[in-house]
Amino acid sequence: MLVPRLIERKRDGGALTPAEWEGLITGYVRGEIPDYQLAALAMAIVFRGLTPEELTALTGAMLHSGARLDFGDWATPRVDKHSIGGVGDKTSLLLAPMLACAGVAVPMISGRGLGHTGGTLDKLEAIAGFRTGLSLDEAVAQVKRLGCVMLGQTPELVPADRKLYALRDVTGTVESLPLISASIMSKKLAEGLTGLVLDIKTGSGAFLTDPKQSLELARTMIGLGEAQGCRTVGLLTAMDRPLGHACGNALEVREALDGLRGGGPEDLMEVTYALGVEMLVVGGVTGDRAAARAMLEEVVRSGRALARFREMVEAQGGDVMMVDDPSRLPRAPVEAEYRAPRAGVIAQVEPRRIGQAVVALGGGRARTEDRVDPAVGFVIPVKPGERVAEGDRLATVHARDAGSAEQALASLGQAIVVAEQGELSPLITHRVSREGVEALA
Amino acid sequence: MLVPRLIERKRDGGALTPAEWEGLITGYVRGEIPDYQLAALAMAIVFRGLTPEELTALTGAMLHSGARLDFGDWATPRVDKHSIGGVGDKTSLLLAPMLACAGVAVPMISGRGLGHTGGTLDKLEAIAGFRTGLSLDEAVAQVKRLGCVMLGQTPELVPADRKLYALRDVTGTVESLPLISASIMSKKLAEGLTGLVLDIKTGSGAFLTDPKQSLELARTMIGLGEAQGCRTVGLLTAMDRPLGHACGNALEVREALDGLRGGGPEDLMEVTYALGVEMLVVGGVTGDRAAARAMLEEVVRSGRALARFREMVEAQGGDVMMVDDPSRLPRAPVEAEYRAPRAGVIAQVEPRRIGQAVVALGGGRARTEDRVDPAVGFVIPVKPGERVAEGDRLATVHARDAGSAEQALASLGQAIVVAEQGELSPLITHRVSREGVEALA
Repeated sequence: MLVPRLIERKRDGGALTPAEWEGLITGYVRGEIPDYQLAALAMAIVFRGLTPEELTALTGAMLHSGARLDFGDWATPRVDKHSIGGVGDKTSLLLAPMLACAGVAVPMISGRGLGHTGGTLDKLEAIAGFRTGLSLDEAVAQVKRLGCVMLGQTPELVPADRKLYALRDVTGTVESLPLISASIMSKKLAEGLTGLVLDIKTGSGAFLTDPKQSLELARTMIGLGEAQGCRTVGLLTAMDRPLGHACGNALEVREALDGLRGGGPEDLMEVTYALGVEMLVVGGVTGDRAAARAMLEEVVRSGRALARFREMVEAQGGDVMMVDDPSRLPRAPVEAEYRAPRAGVIAQVEPRRIGQAVVALGGGRARTEDRVDPAVGFVIPVKPGERVAEGDRLATVHARDAGSAEQALASLGQAIVVAEQGELSPLITHRVSREGVEALA
Repeated sequence: MLVPRLIERKRDGGALTPAEWEGLITGYVRGEIPDYQLAALAMAIVFRGLTPEELTALTGAMLHSGARLDFGDWATPRVDKHSIGGVGDKTSLLLAPMLACAGVAVPMISGRGLGHTGGTLDKLEAIAGFRTGLSLDEAVAQVKRLGCVMLGQTPELVPADRKLYALRDVTGTVESLPLISASIMSKKLAEGLTGLVLDIKTGSGAFLTDPKQSLELARTMIGLGEAQGCRTVGLLTAMDRPLGHACGNALEVREALDGLRGGGPEDLMEVTYALGVEMLVVGGVTGDRAAARAMLEEVVRSGRALARFREMVEAQGGDVMMVDDPSRLPRAPVEAEYRAPRAGVIAQVEPRRIGQAVVALGGGRARTEDRVDPAVGFVIPVKPGERVAEGDRLATVHARDAGSAEQALASLGQAIVVAEQGELSPLITHRVSREGVEALA
């Protein structure tokens, strides 16, 4: 296999065979193929794309590059939910325990926030002591015992993706739908899943702002999941405003706990239930969506989901007192209120700016190595379309100090637009599956 | 300067500033910017190209990455000829001494053959003892003394090109007109030239087979030369058949010596004189092409050009007995004749196949590190359009052994086509300069 010839073939619009992809990825992980050849190939892929067969082969090769969660002959369905970025999205914290109570195991390997979007690991670590660095064996054992686990990447899991992603990050080759799909799906499939539900965010705060691209990404990832025998469906959900009210790690944990206690903002709970229903369906628990919804409402109403979350926190070394009394979660010393500068209708609560403002407050990362302050962030209880009077409280800033609070208020002034009119776009617009695209709104 | 942002800008169709190109090339040569980032950038350039301003900046940055031949305030014009590949092209061996005798110094830094095309250094090294590895100081001193020198790349000359070319060779990024132009022109401009004549080969045996691409390459390189104050013109010459009769290193030296003695195949001498005339014109010796031609014919007729070649060989350690008696040049032990399989007209003498057959005989390189056998090759005295009878001798093979001679005869059977009709395409079709394109045939 002459790597330059393979690069040239891809550059000229041709396709590589499955054996060639396997050879490339194996050679790359072993260090036999140098970074510069993969960098050139990745750039050629940015321009030429991959055929569906190539993408399946690449994803398979990446998946085979490392270990997987091995559940042996354990019969319980295992379903994860994966979201393509977002601001204020804490559905994972709710779904893992809810689904575990409803008979679907959730082995959830998550990431950290980067850029303007939050990351589940950062949220969990707002709970003092919570350990996300589990071994694969610990994770499997916990899933078998509690029905859920939430951990971070481990070195033995899809090493090809870790190496390739780091390379893409510094070579301008992140923005490629096939490479994004292969990266996400190889990691998800390494969780030993029987099903997967994708939350494809659309709108200005999403990773992809063009709905057509979001749909294409969903279709591509579904094809990859199904090709590996993993039932995969996607929901397209709105990310033209934050999901729920809280944006910031401890604030979001608190809001998730509200949800598990039967409260929680309406939009957050709508999206959580909708994703949970799909997880039960792909998990094969029921084909009846109304029944699935009822099951999930029951595990919340009964307190079982909250109890399961508490058990998971305890199992992973977290401080359960913070679960029992969310006021014990990290709190920022400075609070400031953002008030409506005029009467009118909320026209925009722009999530990308809000996510960036969270980073500026210290609650996210500008670089991978940055430390995150769990306490800071925003609570923004208003949504587009709501009528407000001048001086109404539109948001609360939680900051380290008066200076950063001041800056954050200025950012809110740009993110939250009060105008003559405004409206709320539909929250959940499409379901995508191997059967096709179904409009939901 | 964040390199990934620069790569992304190029990827997305934007342009980098001159300072950014300078920073990239300087950082790359110093090892501060890794291969993988340049590889991704090179692939983005393959797809997006470079603006004229970017190309000038890149070429300038590469030129500044190392030393140049420094002629100080020496007033003699210095003109080189550069050919874009070819088979049977030994014009350099003739032109350097001819021009030196006519008042134009020729500091010629050449390459080795790679792929199906020959290289001037390999040809010169067919002369026992000929030393092409001169230092820059030696080269300058020899030019000032003899008016010509023929040497190979030195480590201090355009290190950016050497590093980048090696990277492009293994990352599928060789085929980019702007990168090819920058590579060639940075090396030529490092020769401290006042003028440059490009021999742009067109046809199946050329590096570029599409005449439109050849013209574009010529225009691009002329723009680069002129931007650095180096008068540059190009001739488009036919490479749909070999130039002259001999293909193979010692055989070509012998043919060049024939030419310097006043003989030589007609097409070889036509191209040599045409290029030489342009060199005299850009060198400012005369603006009158007929007068220039007469000067060059005189330096051959008088024996001065041959004597100057002999002096150069002597100065560079070569065996002048081989110049005085070309039968002393390396000779292959096996000779075999290729005869016309039928009566008819020569329709094709396909140079790419012939060049590849020279490599197969051991006379060229499949890999950079291959050793070249100077003795092997072909003499093919026929040209397209010539009528032949069955059994006429069309070519002579010079081989190491009977087996490779047999193979070479089979290759000639494919390269030389005898048919009902055939014709010779014009030898020199266009002159390209900053003034535009002028048709010559």
